[in-house]
Amino acid sequence: MSAAPSETPKATNIVWHEASVNRQAHAKQRGHSSAILWFTGLSGSGKSTLANAVNATLFERGLATYVLDGDNVRHGLCQDLGFSDADREENIRRIGEVAKLFSESATITITAFISPYRAGRDAVREILPEGRFLECLIDTPLEVCESRDPKGLYQKARSGIIPNFTGISAPYEAPLNAEIIVKTDGCSVDESALQIIDQLVAQGFVS
Amino acid sequence: MSAAPSETPKATNIVWHEASVNRQAHAKQRGHSSAILWFTGLSGSGKSTLANAVNATLFERGLATYVLDGDNVRHGLCQDLGFSDADREENIRRIGEVAKLFSESATITITAFISPYRAGRDAVREILPEGRFLECLIDTPLEVCESRDPKGLYQKARSGIIPNFTGISAPYEAPLNAEIIVKTDGCSVDESALQIIDQLVAQGFVS
Repeated sequence: MSAAPSETPKATNIVWHEASVNRQAHAKQRGHSSAILWFTGLSGSGKSTLANAVNATLFERGLATYVLDGDNVRHGLCQDLGFSDADREENIRRIGEVAKLFSESATITITAFISPYRAGRDAVREILPEGRFLECLIDTPLEVCESRDPKGLYQKARSGIIPNFTGISAPYEAPLNAEIIVKTDGCSVDESALQIIDQLVAQGFVS
Repeated sequence: MSAAPSETPKATNIVWHEASVNRQAHAKQRGHSSAILWFTGLSGSGKSTLANAVNATLFERGLATYVLDGDNVRHGLCQDLGFSDADREENIRRIGEVAKLFSESATITITAFISPYRAGRDAVREILPEGRFLECLIDTPLEVCESRDPKGLYQKARSGIIPNFTGISAPYEAPLNAEIIVKTDGCSVDESALQIIDQLVAQGFVS
């Protein structure tokens, strides 16, 4: 069964169609259930790199997987959004809804967004079936992220060129009860990815 | 290779990540390529019903498929949008972007939206790789749709309760060169769905 809609949409005169091929049917075809691995962490913490590494590992094991990447989604679905608080909130909301659609097709979906606010992440958790949303904290200290600064963003944030920059001039609210936590400092990408896979196995999401 | 982004996003300081598992890898895993079957037609023409019927048939043949349904998407991703011209355009734009993401995971995606404007549909075609966008006209005469009126919408549109209603108080621009055309009048759902499957087979998209 698809999850029933919990929100009242702006548009009226619409009804909820039960999909002819539902989540269970997709899961049976694919041989596994869906989950959203919601990576969250500071800019430069390694979210996209690790998302792609974990994705590749799960894919090689034959699972249907897909990465929704913050940077990439912003070229398409969210190209109309900037980095104001309202736009960031809408960005995360849309990604959550897309992740939900993917999860209904029994795809293991990995998202890689800073997603700095607890409320935004919790709102995504709320629209998903119980147990399908795995918050995955990419726990890299700010000073490490800033020293990496792969895109030169911290430098621009410190000099005021980029406003509202998470960790510098905007808050990052770390998860209080993340299902998965990975500390990347001092670890290679492969080691960090393995930490995540190991936790997925330990929690029974991957065999 | 993923299609490179063609639009300039509002957000700056973002880069395009090439996915570690690309469209070709997904297609190899699933045993077939992706396509978007973009159903378009009047309200009551049978889009959602046929989308689900075709989806079920393809799914039973073992293909990875998914339906993005106009009514359902409006409860989630597009719950902030109404039926003004601007909102309708944004609705179709977002669906096109989501369909693109699904297609990158080698899922055959069927969309069922009125999508009344050629420009909106053409814009979706533009962001997809050549040959992946199949416009599918559900060609049901207005008088038939209005006589079916499954949701009582035409009655409300005629009485002015619903403004901007496609076919009554807003235009419907039929495709000029749809890849697939199905005439539903006088046909059962199964017969109409078979017409679509037959055309998919004839054009080599389904074996």
